[in-house]
Amino acid sequence: MQFHLNGFKAGDPAISERTGSPARSENVPEEVDVLIVGCGPAGLTLAAQLAAFPEIQTRIVEQKPGPLKLGQADGIACRTMEMFNAFGFAERVEREAYWVNETVFWKPDPEEPSRIARSGRVQDVEDGLSEFPHVILNQARVHDHFLGIMKNAPNRLEPDYHRKLTSLEIDPAPSAEDHPVTVRLERTDPGHEGEVETVRARYVVGCDGARSVVRKLLGGELKGDSANQAWGVMDVLAVTDFPDIRYKALVQSAAEGSILIIPREGGYLVRIYVELDKLKPDERVANRNITVGYLIEAARRILAPHTLEVKEVAWWSVYEIGQRICDAFDDVPQDQVRERLPRVFIAGDACHTHSPKAGQGMNVSMQDTFNLGWKLAHVLTGRSGPDLLSTYSAERRAIAQTLIDFDRDWARLVSAPVKSEQNPDGVDPADVQKYFVQHGRYTAGTATLYQPSVLTGDGTHQHLARGFVTGMRFHSAPVIRLADAKPVHLGHVVEADGRWRIFAFGGHTDPGGTDCAVRQLCDFLQSDPASPVLRHTRTGEDPDSILDVRAVFQQGHRDLALEKMHAFLLPEKGGYGLKDYEKVFCPDLKDGPDIFDLRGIDRNAGCLVIVRPDQYVAEVLPLEAHAALSAFFDRVLLHRN
Amino acid sequence: MQFHLNGFKAGDPAISERTGSPARSENVPEEVDVLIVGCGPAGLTLAAQLAAFPEIQTRIVEQKPGPLKLGQADGIACRTMEMFNAFGFAERVEREAYWVNETVFWKPDPEEPSRIARSGRVQDVEDGLSEFPHVILNQARVHDHFLGIMKNAPNRLEPDYHRKLTSLEIDPAPSAEDHPVTVRLERTDPGHEGEVETVRARYVVGCDGARSVVRKLLGGELKGDSANQAWGVMDVLAVTDFPDIRYKALVQSAAEGSILIIPREGGYLVRIYVELDKLKPDERVANRNITVGYLIEAARRILAPHTLEVKEVAWWSVYEIGQRICDAFDDVPQDQVRERLPRVFIAGDACHTHSPKAGQGMNVSMQDTFNLGWKLAHVLTGRSGPDLLSTYSAERRAIAQTLIDFDRDWARLVSAPVKSEQNPDGVDPADVQKYFVQHGRYTAGTATLYQPSVLTGDGTHQHLARGFVTGMRFHSAPVIRLADAKPVHLGHVVEADGRWRIFAFGGHTDPGGTDCAVRQLCDFLQSDPASPVLRHTRTGEDPDSILDVRAVFQQGHRDLALEKMHAFLLPEKGGYGLKDYEKVFCPDLKDGPDIFDLRGIDRNAGCLVIVRPDQYVAEVLPLEAHAALSAFFDRVLLHRN
Repeated sequence: MQFHLNGFKAGDPAISERTGSPARSENVPEEVDVLIVGCGPAGLTLAAQLAAFPEIQTRIVEQKPGPLKLGQADGIACRTMEMFNAFGFAERVEREAYWVNETVFWKPDPEEPSRIARSGRVQDVEDGLSEFPHVILNQARVHDHFLGIMKNAPNRLEPDYHRKLTSLEIDPAPSAEDHPVTVRLERTDPGHEGEVETVRARYVVGCDGARSVVRKLLGGELKGDSANQAWGVMDVLAVTDFPDIRYKALVQSAAEGSILIIPREGGYLVRIYVELDKLKPDERVANRNITVGYLIEAARRILAPHTLEVKEVAWWSVYEIGQRICDAFDDVPQDQVRERLPRVFIAGDACHTHSPKAGQGMNVSMQDTFNLGWKLAHVLTGRSGPDLLSTYSAERRAIAQTLIDFDRDWARLVSAPVKSEQNPDGVDPADVQKYFVQHGRYTAGTATLYQPSVLTGDGTHQHLARGFVTGMRFHSAPVIRLADAKPVHLGHVVEADGRWRIFAFGGHTDPGGTDCAVRQLCDFLQSDPASPVLRHTRTGEDPDSILDVRAVFQQGHRDLALEKMHAFLLPEKGGYGLKDYEKVFCPDLKDGPDIFDLRGIDRNAGCLVIVRPDQYVAEVLPLEAHAALSAFFDRVLLHRN
Repeated sequence: MQFHLNGFKAGDPAISERTGSPARSENVPEEVDVLIVGCGPAGLTLAAQLAAFPEIQTRIVEQKPGPLKLGQADGIACRTMEMFNAFGFAERVEREAYWVNETVFWKPDPEEPSRIARSGRVQDVEDGLSEFPHVILNQARVHDHFLGIMKNAPNRLEPDYHRKLTSLEIDPAPSAEDHPVTVRLERTDPGHEGEVETVRARYVVGCDGARSVVRKLLGGELKGDSANQAWGVMDVLAVTDFPDIRYKALVQSAAEGSILIIPREGGYLVRIYVELDKLKPDERVANRNITVGYLIEAARRILAPHTLEVKEVAWWSVYEIGQRICDAFDDVPQDQVRERLPRVFIAGDACHTHSPKAGQGMNVSMQDTFNLGWKLAHVLTGRSGPDLLSTYSAERRAIAQTLIDFDRDWARLVSAPVKSEQNPDGVDPADVQKYFVQHGRYTAGTATLYQPSVLTGDGTHQHLARGFVTGMRFHSAPVIRLADAKPVHLGHVVEADGRWRIFAFGGHTDPGGTDCAVRQLCDFLQSDPASPVLRHTRTGEDPDSILDVRAVFQQGHRDLALEKMHAFLLPEKGGYGLKDYEKVFCPDLKDGPDIFDLRGIDRNAGCLVIVRPDQYVAEVLPLEAHAALSAFFDRVLLHRN
């Protein structure tokens, strides 16, 4: 955490100084830059991201009367924790959440198939996949953390609750500076019922869930499988002698179906998913009149001979599984992508739905808007042209499609009857376990791979750093900061601040010598007219305002002299011109293999790794590829004005 | 973190439900259980500890108009971080603070003594000494964290500012249920100036600093060295080419004196201590009219040939070093200890002062009241007789005396002229560095050792666990929780909740077998009339309300069956009788030596370790020593009523 740059400020550094913008209006203003519809994980991630830019006027509206209190999603993948860390609250989630350390599998006891027996136990996340655990936490608490970020931001962003979206129109021929999207909101709060607010926005983002009104008003449609598998879910406080009640457990019985046990935060609460009978075509689960008592009885039969005594039901629901997706995640039909620029986006459940079985829903929704947020910020602050926004639908739709394919397979496996003499076509629980292990990186959220595009290189120089895969998230590793010997995670310098990072990994030459490629890179970045830092940083801005360059050398921190570092790596910043001492790192030589070995970096040549504001590796380049570096940013960023 | 035991509650689990007690009065009430005077680190630690007991009426008053904003102490030792962890905010401090990773030493360049040169570099904290780092953070932020704990506690404890203590009287013959201490407070807040509140308290604790009014009203006196070494201190934002400005650095120049550099949180701020000339006898530093400009110039001369350009002074002060201590830390003169019980205590700077050079002041002050807090809670909730309170002065005065002796040596070394041809009697900087390394455990706060007493065993069975030294803090180590395979630190189960912990480390026998000593211990604790759990736990209380028993076995967590654990280790708690799954641990076999090796536990015999509510090891016993276990708690706790 860096603070006090422009003078000592007392108090919590997480609480930004309030900007001079006028006090928050009680009504949604008539004109905004971004209107976010929906206060779920997707909407709040976007709002928290945009809150970092006080110059962008953002509002977020929600139909419900206030913040979510319970229920809904709870799975938080490692990758999501990495994103939470960029927002600054991963430690708090780690502290509060349940940690999924191992997953256990139960199947019919081969000796006596009417009883269940433990059939397998696997480590949930492979070693080294992420520095963060896979955790489980009430979605409402995730919301709370984002709401906290928003409230502490310079513009003190808060949701406008009690707002129902009733119409959305897009001016077909807007001028660049216009607010082409007109939205009508109907207030539902006591004393204001029926009042209509008309809001003109530059951009609107529908994060309003599977029944998204934004999607419907755009004419979009969720397409995909008809839902025919029903499940019940309940969060309960219960007493049981089932020994794995504090493990994530998939229990498949011979004749009574399956349950999935997800232990929850706090040590006592547990979520149980209960498989229900298949629905008939066009039947809705609501027609079944299923009660929570029914779910409890089903869970008991499946867990037999173990006991289950439910003391309190905190929340429960029944739902159908349906893997569905929209054709586009914005308002531009696929055949007009080259002619039109998007003005309205949809994210999360509004554009892709799936079963909760793989614990992916909340995660992929937040990753949607983490992808969109910095792009909107770039465009609205004049860093990039509006064509950047077309990459959102292109990138995220491909990811959602992969998720849906995975989810379909997984849901089918989990719901299928267990293979037995009576059911020779059933699924062998060993195959379920095998599939689970094979897809561990996928469920951890770390397998997401963006295809080559304007934002993502084609892997030409991937051999220089095999562990920083172009198109995948930057996989952090431990390092030591040169200026103060602090052990840190290199990836944690990528905060949710809309900046790009350029990591320069030193090769075999002496970092102090003139033949050092990192030094030559610094010369280029500091003074060459083609330097992307000079081209894209505005007058008066700190040198790392948009491109944040960090160097990682191979020498131990006691073997490198700070005073011999290039001045570009000790930039002067802020009103006082104070030096930033956090740009140079060394390997952590104390604990096992160092970052060069862990990430397969070419020790002879070194390399450059460009990391997007949402933590994905955009490109790997040779240290000497100055022109390619300039060209990359020329495609993405505008020259300074 | 455990929560939801008595039903699901939405929202932040760190915020307790408000108790039914009446709303906080604007005036300090006429009767309270504990009145704390002073909102420094000692007072706030005590208030935060007592806030865990809503049945105890605590108030804390402060002469100043509001919370501290800047300045004062900033060193936070590893041991203090362990205590912060017990209060639940260590992660936040870790995130915000500067980490002291290495300390560097500069001395006159042997080639050219008018210039300084780096002479040494040492790791600040030895590996494995604590799971927490040594950090630096503005004292005001430490206050903020404690104020947060208080405000989130069931009784929403907040300080009463603007209160000046004017008198204190102790009824010499109080009845047990009485409020024998009468205190008068004068209000200084606008509109209430001069109003006097008369408060009768069961106990009063003076945490009101070196000029403590409580101490003076008790007739106590700080005795010790006269202050003759003066230092200046400043928190600055500065630009320098001194390369170690982000390291803790002791810089000793040949002719210009010494400075101590303490980098501060946020990456830019730095604290600089500047040695000033010796004071004459009876001279006060205030008479010197020293300005901050003088301090800056002195620092510049010492740092030469390096530059130092101060851009902003956030805070500065000058002070004299004086190692002084009170004869007693309560109102009972030493010759009356056997006849009288204490009613008034003093803590922190009120009873011991020292130089800030070793960074100990704030730490030892907080440890004072962390020692006192649970004892007051025990007595006021009827867990213990009031004689327990006599141990506070006995234990903490001995610790303060050791600190003062250490501080005197260290301050002398740091202030002494550097040895040279001109100064053959000066101090060799190499000796300073050596002393620093030798006393690393001391400055980390982990060397504190309480002598044998009613609370501390005599080490008879120390050979059973050489790494859990009787009288020293329980040195945590990593373990795996059996019920959910979570990697945790065993010591982190010792929260600041006023409970005792009994750790049972299993020996060589099968944990499931009847000859297992842990199982036999559980039988004893669960049902023997001599069981301390039965004797000291009240009807209706959870079985771990006062004695929290945890078992640590030698087998890996996949080799132990939860269902074979003794029922005592899966206690049913709360209104629903939910099982607590967090009582049994296994070694962490993945990362290096396990807890049995790390702490020298006898793998054949196992052992029992009794840990006090303030995290100190009270006693190490054989697993079979049931009678000795009972006898220990019989000395400290009352039988249930």
